[in-house]
Amino acid sequence: MSKKQKKRKICFVITSGIHYSRSKLILFELKKRKNVDLQIVVAASAILSMYSDVLALMKKDGFKCNAKITMVLEGGSPVAMAKTTGIGITEFTTVFENLSPDIVVVRGDRYEVLAPVIAAAYLNITIAHIEGGDVTGNIDESVRHAITKLSHIHFTTNEESKKRVMRMGELPGFVYDVGAPELEFVAKNNYRVSNEFINYLGVGDAVDINRPYIVVMQHPVTSEHGKNKDHIEETLHAIYDLKIPSIWFWPNVDAGTDEVSKGIRSFREEKNPSHMRFIKHIPPEEFIGLLKKTACLVGNSSSGIKECSYLGIPAVNIGSRQNGRMRASNVIDVGYDMKKIKKAIKAQIKHGVYQPSHMYYKKNTCKKICDILVSVDTYTQKFFYDGN
Amino acid sequence: MSKKQKKRKICFVITSGIHYSRSKLILFELKKRKNVDLQIVVAASAILSMYSDVLALMKKDGFKCNAKITMVLEGGSPVAMAKTTGIGITEFTTVFENLSPDIVVVRGDRYEVLAPVIAAAYLNITIAHIEGGDVTGNIDESVRHAITKLSHIHFTTNEESKKRVMRMGELPGFVYDVGAPELEFVAKNNYRVSNEFINYLGVGDAVDINRPYIVVMQHPVTSEHGKNKDHIEETLHAIYDLKIPSIWFWPNVDAGTDEVSKGIRSFREEKNPSHMRFIKHIPPEEFIGLLKKTACLVGNSSSGIKECSYLGIPAVNIGSRQNGRMRASNVIDVGYDMKKIKKAIKAQIKHGVYQPSHMYYKKNTCKKICDILVSVDTYTQKFFYDGN
Amino acid sequence: MSKKQKKRKICFVITSGIHYSRSKLILFELKKRKNVDLQIVVAASAILSMYSDVLALMKKDGFKCNAKITMVLEGGSPVAMAKTTGIGITEFTTVFENLSPDIVVVRGDRYEVLAPVIAAAYLNITIAHIEGGDVTGNIDESVRHAITKLSHIHFTTNEESKKRVMRMGELPGFVYDVGAPELEFVAKNNYRVSNEFINYLGVGDAVDINRPYIVVMQHPVTSEHGKNKDHIEETLHAIYDLKIPSIWFWPNVDAGTDEVSKGIRSFREEKNPSHMRFIKHIPPEEFIGLLKKTACLVGNSSSGIKECSYLGIPAVNIGSRQNGRMRASNVIDVGYDMKKIKKAIKAQIKHGVYQPSHMYYKKNTCKKICDILVSVDTYTQKFFYDGN
Amino acid sequence: MSKKQKKRKICFVITSGIHYSRSKLILFELKKRKNVDLQIVVAASAILSMYSDVLALMKKDGFKCNAKITMVLEGGSPVAMAKTTGIGITEFTTVFENLSPDIVVVRGDRYEVLAPVIAAAYLNITIAHIEGGDVTGNIDESVRHAITKLSHIHFTTNEESKKRVMRMGELPGFVYDVGAPELEFVAKNNYRVSNEFINYLGVGDAVDINRPYIVVMQHPVTSEHGKNKDHIEETLHAIYDLKIPSIWFWPNVDAGTDEVSKGIRSFREEKNPSHMRFIKHIPPEEFIGLLKKTACLVGNSSSGIKECSYLGIPAVNIGSRQNGRMRASNVIDVGYDMKKIKKAIKAQIKHGVYQPSHMYYKKNTCKKICDILVSVDTYTQKFFYDGN
Repeated sequence: MSKKQKKRKICFVITSGIHYSRSKLILFELKKRKNVDLQIVVAASAILSMYSDVLALMKKDGFKCNAKITMVLEGGSPVAMAKTTGIGITEFTTVFENLSPDIVVVRGDRYEVLAPVIAAAYLNITIAHIEGGDVTGNIDESVRHAITKLSHIHFTTNEESKKRVMRMGELPGFVYDVGAPELEFVAKNNYRVSNEFINYLGVGDAVDINRPYIVVMQHPVTSEHGKNKDHIEETLHAIYDLKIPSIWFWPNVDAGTDEVSKGIRSFREEKNPSHMRFIKHIPPEEFIGLLKKTACLVGNSSSGIKECSYLGIPAVNIGSRQNGRMRASNVIDVGYDMKKIKKAIKAQIKHGVYQPSHMYYKKNTCKKICDILVSVDTYTQKFFYDGN
Repeated sequence: MSKKQKKRKICFVITSGIHYSRSKLILFELKKRKNVDLQIVVAASAILSMYSDVLALMKKDGFKCNAKITMVLEGGSPVAMAKTTGIGITEFTTVFENLSPDIVVVRGDRYEVLAPVIAAAYLNITIAHIEGGDVTGNIDESVRHAITKLSHIHFTTNEESKKRVMRMGELPGFVYDVGAPELEFVAKNNYRVSNEFINYLGVGDAVDINRPYIVVMQHPVTSEHGKNKDHIEETLHAIYDLKIPSIWFWPNVDAGTDEVSKGIRSFREEKNPSHMRFIKHIPPEEFIGLLKKTACLVGNSSSGIKECSYLGIPAVNIGSRQNGRMRASNVIDVGYDMKKIKKAIKAQIKHGVYQPSHMYYKKNTCKKICDILVSVDTYTQKFFYDGN
Repeated sequence: MSKKQKKRKICFVITSGIHYSRSKLILFELKKRKNVDLQIVVAASAILSMYSDVLALMKKDGFKCNAKITMVLEGGSPVAMAKTTGIGITEFTTVFENLSPDIVVVRGDRYEVLAPVIAAAYLNITIAHIEGGDVTGNIDESVRHAITKLSHIHFTTNEESKKRVMRMGELPGFVYDVGAPELEFVAKNNYRVSNEFINYLGVGDAVDINRPYIVVMQHPVTSEHGKNKDHIEETLHAIYDLKIPSIWFWPNVDAGTDEVSKGIRSFREEKNPSHMRFIKHIPPEEFIGLLKKTACLVGNSSSGIKECSYLGIPAVNIGSRQNGRMRASNVIDVGYDMKKIKKAIKAQIKHGVYQPSHMYYKKNTCKKICDILVSVDTYTQKFFYDGN
Repeated sequence: MSKKQKKRKICFVITSGIHYSRSKLILFELKKRKNVDLQIVVAASAILSMYSDVLALMKKDGFKCNAKITMVLEGGSPVAMAKTTGIGITEFTTVFENLSPDIVVVRGDRYEVLAPVIAAAYLNITIAHIEGGDVTGNIDESVRHAITKLSHIHFTTNEESKKRVMRMGELPGFVYDVGAPELEFVAKNNYRVSNEFINYLGVGDAVDINRPYIVVMQHPVTSEHGKNKDHIEETLHAIYDLKIPSIWFWPNVDAGTDEVSKGIRSFREEKNPSHMRFIKHIPPEEFIGLLKKTACLVGNSSSGIKECSYLGIPAVNIGSRQNGRMRASNVIDVGYDMKKIKKAIKAQIKHGVYQPSHMYYKKNTCKKICDILVSVDTYTQKFFYDGN
């Protein structure tokens, strides 16, 4: 076999449920390519049934999981978050040593993503990073840019972020502004979610999604550890008072997750609220279906900024987690304050759907990413490019 | 006790022998301050007798070690290097949780330094970094800038590096160009090293340092793993042929250290060379004493670029490890080639001492660093500063 | 200071909530001793609020926690259980290195207890083990005897267990049959628990404990991983059908805990049962108060075998977890079978309180343990004693 | 495919160089079996070139390495030894999860062997242990019996050890006294080692093995940490004085290895001894060839007790490491005392070859082990057998 015919081994790392949803189209595209040997590593909260159903979804979608990595320490604390990352490095090192990929692909800014990035960098493997250059709050802000400085190929989701990545000294020829893969997924997805399905999932009261409803996604803020229970309570009481049917997602695995969960659990026991449903996770297509019909997205998920910008869905963004991230007109920002949250939700519902924005959207994002991953000249020794 | 009187807890992390030498003046300065509670954590190769004598030196100098961290995996391979970092994160997390410092101070670009930095960042502790913004080869280049993006306070050693740190989006008010602490140490040190002392250390032939001699410091290059034995052999044969007395330092702990050591050991067994001495480590003062009198520094240590620039000592820099680092006129760069190394050494010895350069030097570096560490407003939530 | 006056450093390790309850009297006794420097390390599920409240209880009781160890990996799987132990070893090593105790005291057979035991054994520290020599099912059976073979001083709770420990080759002079410390705690405790307190804790329906009630403690069985949800459902339906008020404790952290929790959560959502209350943890005194008044203890906790034997409380022991453990007449054993569980509970309630047994009880257990810990000649090099 | 035809997956764990030599015949036998899927995991010092050449030997012998595990922490200290074991557990868990063997086979008593044993036990995998029931000094004594209590199938090397394993409560049907596999290897090996080969290996003076020579194997004793340098110096000076050609093996990786190495290195630099050669490792066949012709084996290796008993080679056993191990008449025991060591060596050389002993030898050991591994009913839930 000549060297030209050798397949490029591309290893995609998935560490959370939403990460899979947002990367699905890329994975399908990579799987189709004849010259690619696709490897998928599923790690961290993506293998915990509490937080995701990625392994089952992958099976259904026909993907093989090359390695599972158990790495999340219990505790929901900064200590657990730090040690989880340490454990993750040792585990990813073993996995990459065995799989010996040509390129490792990671995405986003979650704390645990530093683990595969450091493992790959030290093993002299080329790293491609999706969604660099954004700015936000939380520890994510530090993590994302550290990942950029350890990575070799950059797929940004917007022009501003591309500029930032280049300013940080990355080689111009390796920074590609391709748009957000998750928005291509939103654009191509026509799934309609049913009452039956939603009320089969999760716990709480049944919710009629044929009438106006709110979706709530509020995750812990790691840098506000100790206050996350108070913060979720403001949101809980705001929406309880509004009496609008609501579908809540349990918080992700970041430090403070126990605080948010405890806030929700206590509230449920105390109030036994009649118009709220609480869901752990939902398949990607159904999630978009749910989002498309919601009257308002509430919380601090980047979905309010990204997916909703494209859909024009009104979003109420609470607190500091998305600080600094580029927004379309669909977002109203508020603090952790029940009254202000109520007021903002009312205003958004009254306003209704916004003009869609293509701020984060480009056509053929996933195809472009795959074309580049397949053909790019890999390199490992970085140097700071002063010419940008 | 009023808040004003509360001592600031400053935790200094030392992970290699040379790191201690280069930071000594800062430590003495911090120890003198009444409003500082100095904590010192010694980790990685700094606690391995093979590579350093830091614990003994600290004791002699009157410093207390608050925690020792055993973290280096044997193997001298990229795998060992990656896992060492992972283990280090879990260990530093425990240590920082117990010491609860206000500021963690790290320096340089060694791979394992990412461990205390990630631990501190995730624990919401302010991080100060010395020597950010430089460019070099090796994995160091990636590591240094990733540290910058996780740190809050930056002490650069030269104006170019300051500019780079700011370009990467760091807050202007927190980037200080203070010069290199190790050069202040060089400037203030009058130690003269004796034949007796040098020939008491290490193994090999006795060397008369009252006659012209070479000092060799050649470390493995992690991104050239597998070739380090060949590379050191070029240098060994070059100097063997030159028949000039030489003092060699064993390589540091980076991936490839076994290759370099093996090269030296095999060479010694085979040639039993008559004018070479091999030393593991030497106290800081004695090191500078040795450097001041050398006819030429050979290898790839940053000492050739930094300490020697200030002293005007001729340096032959071999290979890619210091690629891109700002140089004074005292440096000749060559590849891994016996003939070229011989030629360069001859030229440097013929040239003799250069005009000293203040490229990396400023007055009162260590005092300035301490003044800032004591008085700076600490913060933990980072955000990318677009205005630079 | 003469050597005689030197305090003996005794380090007590607590890794679960019930472990603290059962060791409380020993801790109080050790704290009183002038010649003892008591160190307490709290680790594993004992620091997770999901599973215990040990840190708060210790504070209330006036004990200082010398080190906390975050070590439990999420997942509730055998993989998580194994890796948790590995992580624990590295963490306990650091802690013991810093505390340098003369004796480390551990108890029981929980999987994670191997971590402090291996750390201490390799660091040449004397290990005292409470409750060796029992036989049970589960991985506990392997773990307990492995601990015995790594320990130096043995406190058994009954004569049979003492014989077994000696048969395994332990030195006769270091095996002490002192009785179960938890039974001394039961004997001395006069606390009466109130309706107000019980119904303040946990979630679910209010339960009137002035009328006959059942207490349920059913933990996962690690060697039956994958079947634990089915097994708890048998118990849930049995007690649901019986319509007797019941107080349930959530399962401990062993592999399979998610399966048991999920079984309980699904059942609650589906049935919204009217006479069941679910509690995470309860202070030691209140626990005994609750036990003393229960009509029947159901599940697979060793409390049914140990505490209840002394109190004569009827117990229905389900499944294999306590296989082989010495029982008094108060225990009826059944399989995972709803009908048989119902029948056994009915029979036990009909029978009422049994004649108390002193099978596991001796007077002054905790004082004896402390006397020995304080005066025993410590040793570290073990050898197999063939003479027993 | 019917269940009967399914191959049994047998995973053999190798953690040190000598371990491979001693297990070679078993591996060849397993590889021949059609109903066996042989998996080999190489870990710890067995993958460090400093200590062994196992990977190269396996390749030459036609074995595939299914997973390599980097786990040894540098430091040569008890802390490093304990943490290495912890790291090993997390690594072996990942490997066993991926390989999902039916049986894991381990051997001996080295500290790091607890890692695969705990990983397998917690993952509900059947464990077979070779060489249980022996008694020795060192931490090995604790480790070996702890392994027995976590294992399911026991292959002892002598009747005394079988009795001890059974006394510890193991099921009689699962304890097999099959003899020592390494002695079968000795019996079948006819290799003759040459001067050329020996003097190609290692460093030091050339040694003529056609004249009487000594072989020295002295490893650190973990429980005598801090004294190992003094102890090796007694041996070094004894043999230096005797002026008999000697072949030395560098110490293994146990805590204290740095002390022993330093003792040897300093001695070499100081004395430049003319009749000593120092070897890291040697292939299995050549090792036996060397042993067969030696005038005396000196040190504390079990080879003096086991291999030499069968060969009748005189052995001088120094210190506590082999305390309590059953000996044939070929062994003289001495303390760490230069004079006594000299005297014992002289006596042994004068005596010459002893009557061979079959104390540890049985015919067809390796075939028997494989027959049992292939056909035994595997089980995982242990229980203490009181009937022995």
